[in-house]
Amino acid sequence: MKKIIIGVMGAGDKATENDKQKAFEVGKLIAQNGWILLSGGRNAGVMDEVNKGAKEGLGITIGILPAANNLFTSKYVDIPIITGMDSARNAINILSSDAIVAIGMGRGTASEIALALKSNKHVILLNDDEESKVFFKKLGKDHVVVAESPIEAISYIKRILKI
Amino acid sequence: MKKIIIGVMGAGDKATENDKQKAFEVGKLIAQNGWILLSGGRNAGVMDEVNKGAKEGLGITIGILPAANNLFTSKYVDIPIITGMDSARNAINILSSDAIVAIGMGRGTASEIALALKSNKHVILLNDDEESKVFFKKLGKDHVVVAESPIEAISYIKRILKI
Amino acid sequence: MKKIIIGVMGAGDKATENDKQKAFEVGKLIAQNGWILLSGGRNAGVMDEVNKGAKEGLGITIGILPAANNLFTSKYVDIPIITGMDSARNAINILSSDAIVAIGMGRGTASEIALALKSNKHVILLNDDEESKVFFKKLGKDHVVVAESPIEAISYIKRILKI
Amino acid sequence: MKKIIIGVMGAGDKATENDKQKAFEVGKLIAQNGWILLSGGRNAGVMDEVNKGAKEGLGITIGILPAANNLFTSKYVDIPIITGMDSARNAINILSSDAIVAIGMGRGTASEIALALKSNKHVILLNDDEESKVFFKKLGKDHVVVAESPIEAISYIKRILKI
Repeated sequence: MKKIIIGVMGAGDKATENDKQKAFEVGKLIAQNGWILLSGGRNAGVMDEVNKGAKEGLGITIGILPAANNLFTSKYVDIPIITGMDSARNAINILSSDAIVAIGMGRGTASEIALALKSNKHVILLNDDEESKVFFKKLGKDHVVVAESPIEAISYIKRILKI
Repeated sequence: MKKIIIGVMGAGDKATENDKQKAFEVGKLIAQNGWILLSGGRNAGVMDEVNKGAKEGLGITIGILPAANNLFTSKYVDIPIITGMDSARNAINILSSDAIVAIGMGRGTASEIALALKSNKHVILLNDDEESKVFFKKLGKDHVVVAESPIEAISYIKRILKI
Repeated sequence: MKKIIIGVMGAGDKATENDKQKAFEVGKLIAQNGWILLSGGRNAGVMDEVNKGAKEGLGITIGILPAANNLFTSKYVDIPIITGMDSARNAINILSSDAIVAIGMGRGTASEIALALKSNKHVILLNDDEESKVFFKKLGKDHVVVAESPIEAISYIKRILKI
Repeated sequence: MKKIIIGVMGAGDKATENDKQKAFEVGKLIAQNGWILLSGGRNAGVMDEVNKGAKEGLGITIGILPAANNLFTSKYVDIPIITGMDSARNAINILSSDAIVAIGMGRGTASEIALALKSNKHVILLNDDEESKVFFKKLGKDHVVVAESPIEAISYIKRILKI
């Protein structure tokens, strides 16, 4: 039976402390709701923290890795999917998620939000970057919402998934 | 913490009854050993049966789907990874598996065995096609073994993973 | 000997008339400069027009197609690269281009600009969408420039490639 | 207007001298027939030699590279398509070719032949490995032929393409 999968996208090495704290909290809440966490899976920044949070919440974590091996996988990932496809794997992150939370803003994250909107997925922005909010709300219309906190992000997920 | 992931490859619509019975049994045994099952994820042939068996064994099942949506996913797949990449996803199946069991023989399966050997993965053949056994044992040398039964396939997995 | 390859990204069915006119002109100028044109290759919008322009300029045209067949390929594409990878092929468009021109704005195009910046490629924006210019200039810093016309886009390409 | 594209697959570092000589000859003949050569594009073995031959024949050469950069591209490749997708790019090699010649035998080559047959493409085998001929002729039926020489391979291409 298909489980609910929530994708959380965000920066690796360039993530801010604020982004990482939010990521931990979002991961924990996803797990506590019984959903599976999907992320880019690397042992850096938002990716590492969201997985750490999900394990704290006793959840299951999936990482879609860009590399062809497991060297830079977060130790909080239960199920690493090793693509060897570099940034092309961003498309898989999106297609496999029932809803997407984007934490912070960066180049990889921006590509994932755009791909999500192209696939008619719903995206929840959790960041402080005003220009990105303006741009993506125009690009995505009613498929983009801005959350002010991890808890609000979770309530948007429930609304999107009608649960 | 990374879990052990066993990839089972095999035909969809062209699978024989014998292949499907073996697939069910292999899936069940994988689950009963506490390993995660990874397959091509479609609702046909070996893919469907191995997932059905793994759920019978109360395991977790991952499907790496070729399509860009969930329309043809086996209902026994817990975690569908939607690639939208057609047969290019075969490379992901291989890279993500700690060991590979190939049940039956077909064109997609043959491509997966060859990719597995290129990545230095171990492959266990469970089929009745003599020419494929001869060819792949020559191609893969000590990375290819032939199992006579699902139970023997499982014992080979344990030897490969040194568990 | 490697030839210079210029990638032109832009919308398919949602392209405006203005976008399409610019695309035709950019394609023609790329060809007249002796560069090879690379695009998403479909028979729609910016993709179709930029290839048409390049053939008018007697150039060579490459299309990186999302589909697994040739059904929706622009007839102005000389060399269709059939990926069968849907939007994951956007990453290939970027990695294979020495410089990128983005005409108009849409979801696929936005994902390609973001991927280009992630790979440290230079992007020339040729569009009327103010929010996207503000966002991508902030995201890409000195790797993003805004051109007012096809001719100015070409002169930016020369500056980027130092030719 | 779409040009005819012939894909030549074969080993890199493990190619034999005999394979490399055949590759050079096949590349030259493809170019002299006015067809475009497509290969895996690396600067090693069959890939390097087939491109060298095609340039000797004054043809156009395309390389579909596994890496995310141009570091290991054959210097005889005119148009490098940089996928960053490792062996997953093998699927693109096949889908983009109107007919496929496989020179020598190895793990990557075997995966490409199998993918070609899955996509109903025709494959011409030019090698001395008996077990592979037996296996792939059984797997591919009338879509696999064995050529004894580069010239015979070319005549098979003409028959397959009905030209």
